[in-house]
Amino acid sequence: MSTRRAFITNTGKAMVAGGLVTFAENGDSNMLENKFIHHVYFWLQNEKSKEDRAMLIEGLKKLSKVKTIKTFHIGQPADTKRDVIDSSYAVSWFTIFDNAADQQSYQTDPIHLKFVEEYSHLWSKVVVYDTVDVK
Amino acid sequence: MSTRRAFITNTGKAMVAGGLVTFAENGDSNMLENKFIHHVYFWLQNEKSKEDRAMLIEGLKKLSKVKTIKTFHIGQPADTKRDVIDSSYAVSWFTIFDNAADQQSYQTDPIHLKFVEEYSHLWSKVVVYDTVDVK
Repeated sequence: MSTRRAFITNTGKAMVAGGLVTFAENGDSNMLENKFIHHVYFWLQNEKSKEDRAMLIEGLKKLSKVKTIKTFHIGQPADTKRDVIDSSYAVSWFTIFDNAADQQSYQTDPIHLKFVEEYSHLWSKVVVYDTVDVK
Repeated sequence: MSTRRAFITNTGKAMVAGGLVTFAENGDSNMLENKFIHHVYFWLQNEKSKEDRAMLIEGLKKLSKVKTIKTFHIGQPADTKRDVIDSSYAVSWFTIFDNAADQQSYQTDPIHLKFVEEYSHLWSKVVVYDTVDVK
């Protein structure tokens, strides 16, 4: 669809063409449902390098162009401090897909392969959490 | 607002009253921006107890009523398997807030305090990643 339009139905489902936005149909409009969440945390090889961090962020911006990504967020640790909070990572890469197949296709998308090829030397560790709705 | 309506502007910003949905204003409609992401992973004390898992999910559904939560998702590990993927957790609790203050107020919200009181015996480990936009 070339134009961006919003639709909303009386079931509480909102859709924005070209974007994401599906709310639950159980009446709880704040609940994400029927989504595949792929959340990645990166630790840098050169922990203190602002240049490397900027380069990784630049790479993630390119990566965000993969068509099956419905929503993304490029983040850094918040200022919160508690024992249970892990704020040791450098960059967070949060993505939402419509389903597992879309995430799988993202893994082998040329844009993703190029991202790994060009930027993977920057990180020392990466942790991925793939999440689907509880059943 | 008692009725749910969708608005969309030519800057690519969509709002749904009562829900969340703010897209970036930089023309990239899929990018979450100006958000505080609070993502929690729970490991159960009784790893194999379906009852305990169901109880925790029930608790999170109650927790989702905290007013400052703009979007949430209750998840479980997807079927994906790679070395970098951590699929050892039992339940994922993903939330979006408008800002750090809203997340801070959630921490001391009576609903949250009650959740911790009633359900914390269920988990053996919890890992939290708090994330804001990269600067």
